Amino acid sequence: MDQHQLKFSARGDALIGQEMFKVLERARKIEEAGGTVIHLELGNPRLPPPPGLVEATIETLKRYDVGYTYSGGLPVLRQTIAKRYRDAHHCAVTEANVVVSPANFLINQFLDLCCDRGDSVVFFTPAFPTYWAAAAHIGLRVEEVALGAERGYDLTRADVDAAVAKRPRAILVNSANNPTGAVYSREVLEYLSDRCGEAGIWILSDETYGDIAYGRPFYTMAEPSARHVVVMCSFSKIFSVPGYRLGFAVAAPDVIAKLSLSVSTQLSCLPIFTQLGCVEGLKVIDEYTGALRERFARTNSECAEIINETNILRCAAPAAGFYVFVDLAGLDIDDMTFCQRLLDECSVAVTPGRSFGPAYKHHIRIATCGEWPSVREGVVRTIALSRRLAGATAA
Amino acid sequence: MDQHQLKFSARGDALIGQEMFKVLERARKIEEAGGTVIHLELGNPRLPPPPGLVEATIETLKRYDVGYTYSGGLPVLRQTIAKRYRDAHHCAVTEANVVVSPANFLINQFLDLCCDRGDSVVFFTPAFPTYWAAAAHIGLRVEEVALGAERGYDLTRADVDAAVAKRPRAILVNSANNPTGAVYSREVLEYLSDRCGEAGIWILSDETYGDIAYGRPFYTMAEPSARHVVVMCSFSKIFSVPGYRLGFAVAAPDVIAKLSLSVSTQLSCLPIFTQLGCVEGLKVIDEYTGALRERFARTNSECAEIINETNILRCAAPAAGFYVFVDLAGLDIDDMTFCQRLLDECSVAVTPGRSFGPAYKHHIRIATCGEWPSVREGVVRTIALSRRLAGATAA
Repeated sequence: MDQHQLKFSARGDALIGQEMFKVLERARKIEEAGGTVIHLELGNPRLPPPPGLVEATIETLKRYDVGYTYSGGLPVLRQTIAKRYRDAHHCAVTEANVVVSPANFLINQFLDLCCDRGDSVVFFTPAFPTYWAAAAHIGLRVEEVALGAERGYDLTRADVDAAVAKRPRAILVNSANNPTGAVYSREVLEYLSDRCGEAGIWILSDETYGDIAYGRPFYTMAEPSARHVVVMCSFSKIFSVPGYRLGFAVAAPDVIAKLSLSVSTQLSCLPIFTQLGCVEGLKVIDEYTGALRERFARTNSECAEIINETNILRCAAPAAGFYVFVDLAGLDIDDMTFCQRLLDECSVAVTPGRSFGPAYKHHIRIATCGEWPSVREGVVRTIALSRRLAGATAA
Repeated sequence: MDQHQLKFSARGDALIGQEMFKVLERARKIEEAGGTVIHLELGNPRLPPPPGLVEATIETLKRYDVGYTYSGGLPVLRQTIAKRYRDAHHCAVTEANVVVSPANFLINQFLDLCCDRGDSVVFFTPAFPTYWAAAAHIGLRVEEVALGAERGYDLTRADVDAAVAKRPRAILVNSANNPTGAVYSREVLEYLSDRCGEAGIWILSDETYGDIAYGRPFYTMAEPSARHVVVMCSFSKIFSVPGYRLGFAVAAPDVIAKLSLSVSTQLSCLPIFTQLGCVEGLKVIDEYTGALRERFARTNSECAEIINETNILRCAAPAAGFYVFVDLAGLDIDDMTFCQRLLDECSVAVTPGRSFGPAYKHHIRIATCGEWPSVREGVVRTIALSRRLAGATAA
């Protein structure tokens, strides 16, 4: 054997990456060649972050506060997050229940630390691409419980029963949902927690979009006395700072300690200056996310309306976040071909539905969080392509 | 089964963390209670970073450039790193040979993507704690090749032969070395590369301290045409910005693509503002690291001198970096007890030797990169404790 035959590990071979980052890189190549692309593929909010957030980061940098710090996160940030859960959600969270970490890292680490290779995990689908990539990498068997499009992809007791009946090691749940914008009821989430608690099933509750739910009250599953429930969240979307790469988990102290060890081993710690920025952001979270909710309620509803008017494309009206998940209902075309033609012929980048599960090869996700004129133009071009394609089929 | 019996995975159970971060947190607790601690446990350089580095980060933040970017790193940073390898090391490195990532993450991911559970890996010991933590987490069998203290922990052809004879999946090599400060010869590193290339063994060459070698010429193993060699490096030490959490790997394009996928899946991408800061740093790397080399040559040599004068403690004179690895030669005490007494009785934090391998329970590592008066005072107190302990033994 020589160096050119050297093999990656089974986990290395199973690392497949995320389709949506591939779309981003393809679009960027077009731009490097001088083209212009409307980016509706990533949830990359380009709004100004909350007042004080970036400024606090800059002040920290001016002090050259660029050393190592606590692996699990700055105590002041963990305390501020805990207080937010006590105040806004009446939930008995303390510093010991919080670890600071990039959110994608938390998803990967939760699955890696709580599930063994060959175990099964349940996703309610459509489901966020990172879940699929992480499960494939770790070697988990994904069992799908598809949520009904006709019910706006809401989660029901029957869906929970179907998930628990599969006897998985863990269930991933995502309310408010990416990509559908659905927000699940308190009643069904409590039922999920109870059923999994009895059955000894881990839950990862991804609540990244919880603070930008506008069409239905958001309910957090955070409950530190329920050891089986791990809640995770990101600052990327609620503070419009995806480049800060910061999020957090809320869970029982021993689970938090394990996740902190993972940060310590793989990342050592996270920057002090980004963490202190988020402390400032949390001081004005209600005002800031209030403005976001108002904005996204308006833009998402306008997008959904003009999409559904086509009678070719179809989407549920989102109750949260800044995506619309579109069924290419009236078209005889798969998602990859549609996305590629949309990028090449109309200079609009969107995410193929299969990123959210193999059953969604006839869907696309449109992110509506960019500058509104550009988002609207991107949606209009998407509709125009659909009409051309539908015309071609009819002819 | 109920939620309280819920188990972590085998990998979760095997996540043991790093001893040196535990010392840091214990020391911080003393400080929170009002005490003062001299920190010689972590390589946390507190010098001002290169001119322009922090300023470029701040300018990027002022532009609100806080969105997502390329998973594998900003092209301009990858190109600048590649150029550095071409100019300084006459090594045919291009952008396609470089991925940007936190260095500890690269160590973990290299082992996870290139070795399967149960495989053996060779460490030349003493070896950096992250290697041990990563190997334990992944389930790798660590085979040690102990380097001779009497030769200043230099790497020899016989050591290489011993390592290859164990037929491991991968060998980790670290020149310039943490904790010993040894720098290996070009001749022995080329021999290592040749032997492993023939035998089909991956090499991870950790060159984090290469640019601060002062006592012997540093040789990089970077050679993108040698697919089995993965070089990794960190900006933490050479730019005094450990809180930036940035490093990079240099390797064959398909290995880089795999490591980039790992960043994409687990971290999405890294901040634009820290990456642009490091681009500025690289413009003045020779002047900046020249000053570091001069400083550390002086302080390390002074520390080694007063330590060896004791005839109780013993260390090799480092040729690189900012650590001295000290044998508690004349003392009948283990490293943990010594470290604890040093912290509790003398308010000085150092790292126990066992962090670098089970054979070093009679050693400590002292980091000399802090403010010199404080470092000197810490070393003086360490020596004073040793004399007291030696006196007590003699009495």
